[in-house]
Amino acid sequence: MILQYETPEVITKVDGVECAGVRVKGGGLGIVKCEGKAVGVFTKNRFKAAPVVVTEEHLKNGFIKGIIVNSGNANAYTGEEGVKNALKMAEMLAEKLECDRKEVLVSSTGVIGVQLNMDWIESLFREVYPQIGSNEENSWKFAKSITTTDSFTKQWGVRIGDVVVAGVAKGAGMIAPNMATMLAYVFTDAKIDCSFIKEVAEKTFNSITVDGDTSTNDTFILVSTEKKACDEKRVKKAVEHVCSVLAEMIVADGEGATKLMRVFVNGAKSEREAKKAARAVASSTLVKTALFGCDANWGRIIAAIGYSGVEVDEKLDIAIVGGSWRAEEAFSGCKNEKVFIVKDGKDTGKRSVASEIMKKSDVVEFHIDLKAGKCKACVVGCDLSYEYVRINSEYTT
Amino acid sequence: MILQYETPEVITKVDGVECAGVRVKGGGLGIVKCEGKAVGVFTKNRFKAAPVVVTEEHLKNGFIKGIIVNSGNANAYTGEEGVKNALKMAEMLAEKLECDRKEVLVSSTGVIGVQLNMDWIESLFREVYPQIGSNEENSWKFAKSITTTDSFTKQWGVRIGDVVVAGVAKGAGMIAPNMATMLAYVFTDAKIDCSFIKEVAEKTFNSITVDGDTSTNDTFILVSTEKKACDEKRVKKAVEHVCSVLAEMIVADGEGATKLMRVFVNGAKSEREAKKAARAVASSTLVKTALFGCDANWGRIIAAIGYSGVEVDEKLDIAIVGGSWRAEEAFSGCKNEKVFIVKDGKDTGKRSVASEIMKKSDVVEFHIDLKAGKCKACVVGCDLSYEYVRINSEYTT
Repeated sequence: MILQYETPEVITKVDGVECAGVRVKGGGLGIVKCEGKAVGVFTKNRFKAAPVVVTEEHLKNGFIKGIIVNSGNANAYTGEEGVKNALKMAEMLAEKLECDRKEVLVSSTGVIGVQLNMDWIESLFREVYPQIGSNEENSWKFAKSITTTDSFTKQWGVRIGDVVVAGVAKGAGMIAPNMATMLAYVFTDAKIDCSFIKEVAEKTFNSITVDGDTSTNDTFILVSTEKKACDEKRVKKAVEHVCSVLAEMIVADGEGATKLMRVFVNGAKSEREAKKAARAVASSTLVKTALFGCDANWGRIIAAIGYSGVEVDEKLDIAIVGGSWRAEEAFSGCKNEKVFIVKDGKDTGKRSVASEIMKKSDVVEFHIDLKAGKCKACVVGCDLSYEYVRINSEYTT
Repeated sequence: MILQYETPEVITKVDGVECAGVRVKGGGLGIVKCEGKAVGVFTKNRFKAAPVVVTEEHLKNGFIKGIIVNSGNANAYTGEEGVKNALKMAEMLAEKLECDRKEVLVSSTGVIGVQLNMDWIESLFREVYPQIGSNEENSWKFAKSITTTDSFTKQWGVRIGDVVVAGVAKGAGMIAPNMATMLAYVFTDAKIDCSFIKEVAEKTFNSITVDGDTSTNDTFILVSTEKKACDEKRVKKAVEHVCSVLAEMIVADGEGATKLMRVFVNGAKSEREAKKAARAVASSTLVKTALFGCDANWGRIIAAIGYSGVEVDEKLDIAIVGGSWRAEEAFSGCKNEKVFIVKDGKDTGKRSVASEIMKKSDVVEFHIDLKAGKCKACVVGCDLSYEYVRINSEYTT
């Protein structure tokens, strides 16, 4: 599913952010130059990639001057040599920025278990560094440089008065809870307290699923260059919005995805249960293949809710809404009419009507009311297509 | 993956077991006549299908005279009417057997959320009942009658002296932990205490995974007609063996499966952790698609172990063994040479050798040593192919 969109703002519009990037066959290298406060959220995979280990350490500082990212090789499961190489990457940039290597963050994405070719990294670095700047094109080039199997670059940003919040992400395969092989960098020039990052991650990057796998390299970094005073509440909302849109872009670019699904669960006993049910539905390979086949197969939805183990009334409702992906609607939901396929626990006989809607829509929302409580959550996923199988059975180094 | 095999024994060789079945377009009906002690293990899905509710109730008795099973319609999520219909099915058979309906067990499998057509059930019953008998063909017909998307019938049995242990199963889609849409009936004429059924289920039917979904109808029934004295320990081992083989048949017939995988995990801190890691690997859609593509992609295996959250040493081993499915090897493992793709945490450079083995094998075993303890487990799964997507995106009522 290739999204056609234009982002209102890019990261180089954030006061104090410059960048560059190059993407060649087999990978790429991107650099950001930015002085500011930074926080991060990382993979929960037990085998953390070397750059994640290094970046977590460097973030203890709380203040950074630059970010360096390569694609093509994840520098994961590479032992001590991997850590040395990640540190070398940080040093490369620190030397140019005349700062401590601890003020540079490092990310990698790509193949697991192979040592980085540092000559290659160095030659890319020599090419990229002189290009650092604040043109719109620089943002695009950075966004492009960090991609792997992504079919489009992912940028989103908004302006609130004279303040900008903008980000870049890369996603595609291995997207799941706990942030999979996903890289996201969100910047703002507003002076805000970034410690709400976990909360934001929970609602956005941790509420998506493509294939249930979580990777060794997931990284979400939030940077404030602290150039401008602001209405902090509004800016935080904007950060959440930007993350939401980037998260949906990642799902839309899920390997082989042809349709996006938003699973809204209401009436749960707790928020945790709402999310659990929503995730079970969005992750079910049977629901995902039914979505691909445009079949409003509510039996599979009910089976998924059932095995998620959450509290649920037999007289639940399931409705669908079809729509198209437009970023400005992201996470506010589609505006079309709800069609109930199950109402008060009974088949409404509208399965074929609903299936027709699915055929015409590239976003399908399932609205599920468990009728067991007052809490809600949303998980965003995608379908499972032939293309997913092709990509993942043929993909190798 | 269509298995070619011949079972040494069938259920009608069990003293005291007779059966019949018919499979028509859209479903089938099967009947077993057997006086004996019975126990069962059932789905953990919150929405238990009506026949599961009825059968659990009837098993409180501990003694049964018959079993009636239909395929084509799961009688799941069908409310009170569904329960009434399940009871009617039990009554139908009870009347003929001149027993209480509580002495009859009922199962259904197929589409969810549609009421059973009782006229259809009754007409099938009138056709099937007179055919009850103890020929080998009767076993086959019963096995056939309970299938849905199965591509072959599943029967396995063994003889220990004058005692027989034999079973019939149906599987295919929705096979996962907690037994998915899986029906299995295992019979023996040996007088044994059947209360070890949970333990057996844990090691066999609950150690397989096809697509991670669990269904509303899973049922595993173990019946002893108590006709013969026996070496109870040996018979119990035979029961486990029969269940293991039936479980592997279910996986081999996983929708669109072309290869079976056995994930053996050793060196875990506890049996629970061993199983958790094995399940994460066997369920990973990235591992499953790599298996389909015959790619010994150990990075994906390591990522799966990593996000399973179990205790593991970075210096772990991963080896593969290729083989072919022969029932007599089931759960005893392939006999070919182990090829290490990761040894002491290091890439052995044998990925392409291993990939060649995968190409030639219809069973691929991954032997993983976590080096964190002394416990082990095995989970059996299959690959994820184009055919899986086709079946599940096109399947409808």
